[in-house]
Amino acid sequence: MTYRKVDLPVHEIRRFLEPGPIVLVSSASRGETNIMTMGWQTVMEFTPSLVGCIIAGSNHSFQLVRRSKECVINLPTADMVDTVVGIGNTSGRDVDKFRHFGLTAEMADQVKAPLIRECYANFECKLADACLIDKYNFFIWEVVKAHVAAAPKHPETLHYLGHGEFMVSGKTISRRSLFRPDML
Amino acid sequence: MTYRKVDLPVHEIRRFLEPGPIVLVSSASRGETNIMTMGWQTVMEFTPSLVGCIIAGSNHSFQLVRRSKECVINLPTADMVDTVVGIGNTSGRDVDKFRHFGLTAEMADQVKAPLIRECYANFECKLADACLIDKYNFFIWEVVKAHVAAAPKHPETLHYLGHGEFMVSGKTISRRSLFRPDML
Repeated sequence: MTYRKVDLPVHEIRRFLEPGPIVLVSSASRGETNIMTMGWQTVMEFTPSLVGCIIAGSNHSFQLVRRSKECVINLPTADMVDTVVGIGNTSGRDVDKFRHFGLTAEMADQVKAPLIRECYANFECKLADACLIDKYNFFIWEVVKAHVAAAPKHPETLHYLGHGEFMVSGKTISRRSLFRPDML
Repeated sequence: MTYRKVDLPVHEIRRFLEPGPIVLVSSASRGETNIMTMGWQTVMEFTPSLVGCIIAGSNHSFQLVRRSKECVINLPTADMVDTVVGIGNTSGRDVDKFRHFGLTAEMADQVKAPLIRECYANFECKLADACLIDKYNFFIWEVVKAHVAAAPKHPETLHYLGHGEFMVSGKTISRRSLFRPDML
């Protein structure tokens, strides 16, 4: 599936990352691209738009993102679960993941890492702070550009439970009327 | 609702935090307790069991967790949504949140911060690394004890979308057969 995408102000990406979905991280360095599956990330700030994540040193992507200081965080939907699992269970040392999984690499606007066209959203990231990479494999990214599908409003996302199991996102409920205006 | 709880090995808490739920952080310092609602957290390591999270300096809880170097991360279920929103829209400066929201403070085993009895799970945390608190309000916690409801296996959790809206966790699917044994 492919989506028509629109720009989203980068301070609004929390809508898609705060609920905790599994994401795909795409990267490029020295003519090579790769994709990894990632579940350990958090929003850290609205402005600048910061995201922190763990990329373990055992991942082939670790060296690509560390060298290039860039990546794209892509949001897959639940229909892509077998691709998500396949990407997480292969290594870029052995496999060209774009080709192997039939995914389309698109040019990003502000980074050299490619967007994954088939994903619902793509967040272009530049390394904002490297201070915890050596100690924790923790990268702090600034999201510099966000591409999001124009529809549907609520994508069905995957949330990893460990042990090969995923929670699929369910219904949306509003409690807007209970919020203080300054909390919205 | 209250649950019968059992101990969970602390390296297994990813099952509950990696899917990205809204959590309640309870704290205690100098005879005062407080609770805040939090959505910006990530698992960082299995062993030691590390969780990183943003607690903004504007929260009354900030000083309590900073001084005590402890907290409890509590996992509320979807039936508690109005309590979760209420806690997020009031301040411990004005309100005793345990009393106001009818929640029960229970003694923890290894920290002075109280457990919230009505929550599905309670993770006792000690501050592991303060190096990013000043720059990002980012706390790195070690989970030293985990209490989890014996049933149900899959709690219905809340995932914040911003703008007063929540996603409620949906069905669980397994792709275990597609995983390499060393990835499980």
